[in-house]
Amino acid sequence: MPVKPDVTQRTTVAQSRLFRAEELHLTFSNGEERVYEKLCSGGPGAVLMVPMVDDHTVLMVREYAGGLEDYHLSLPKGAMDRGETPEQAANRELKEEVGYGADNIHWLKKIHLSPSYMEHKINVLIMRDLYAQKLPGDEPEPLEVVPCNIDDLMDLVMRDDVIEGRTIAALFMAKAWLEQQR
Amino acid sequence: MPVKPDVTQRTTVAQSRLFRAEELHLTFSNGEERVYEKLCSGGPGAVLMVPMVDDHTVLMVREYAGGLEDYHLSLPKGAMDRGETPEQAANRELKEEVGYGADNIHWLKKIHLSPSYMEHKINVLIMRDLYAQKLPGDEPEPLEVVPCNIDDLMDLVMRDDVIEGRTIAALFMAKAWLEQQR
Repeated sequence: MPVKPDVTQRTTVAQSRLFRAEELHLTFSNGEERVYEKLCSGGPGAVLMVPMVDDHTVLMVREYAGGLEDYHLSLPKGAMDRGETPEQAANRELKEEVGYGADNIHWLKKIHLSPSYMEHKINVLIMRDLYAQKLPGDEPEPLEVVPCNIDDLMDLVMRDDVIEGRTIAALFMAKAWLEQQR
Repeated sequence: MPVKPDVTQRTTVAQSRLFRAEELHLTFSNGEERVYEKLCSGGPGAVLMVPMVDDHTVLMVREYAGGLEDYHLSLPKGAMDRGETPEQAANRELKEEVGYGADNIHWLKKIHLSPSYMEHKINVLIMRDLYAQKLPGDEPEPLEVVPCNIDDLMDLVMRDDVIEGRTIAALFMAKAWLEQQR
């Protein structure tokens, strides 16, 4: 592996209620110097759930997205509470957002949003053996739960309302993992 | 489709050289009110390239990522210049980062990073019929180009140094698209 650059200075350059940006002064192993900015992630992390009704049917949610200023169809996700394992957070969030718990939870991988300039990452978990259980959440309105067939996954991910990279990554990984289990 | 919430107020709440965060005051169709924050994306957009040497071999790059403070293996990507089409930007960035141009470019999809709180999106393009051509780029050090086999894609994406969600999404979509073309 290459030698990491030295971080010679680290300063917070912007801060809001949700976001904090840091400036990094870097010296690469060849002597080149650069100033990068990155978004820092507070808190214990996040979970992205792939809830499977059966090996062919995933439960997605139609939700309003502030960054898009529109609705889109994606996998349910949420922030972990302090002290929770990814499995516990995934089961709680699934009950809050989708109205199901899962008796069978498989942690698959932690994926990063944009490592170039963000620290943010999310745990992907496959949720099976679902049972109906609703917990109250903090959503402004109930999410529409949309069962989707994953047999032709390109058909699903090429839809105009399926636009989130990590949802697409998690769907393909989950489908490949489920096929490996058979 | 559901009725979008009204945006009753919009304010910049943080700003650095690279990042700008906006606060949105929203009133949902059921009367619920929320204050969301989102990261705004300036500029004309970005491109993520899937450069295929043949139907089984993709060229990935090992690059230092400021958000990770480490090296990782991902698809090459870059920002579009003003006035460029996604195809033109993808070909320029491929020459700068990987040392190849492509005679056959297929725009596949625009994917979003985290629509919940970011405007950022990236065009995914499949690059084929490659030819050697190097353009000078702005990288602090040359990127290591790593040819990777995509026949067993789970093997590749489950590697500890392959961590970027949109890289994983683009690899699976490109593989499925290539299989559809046969």
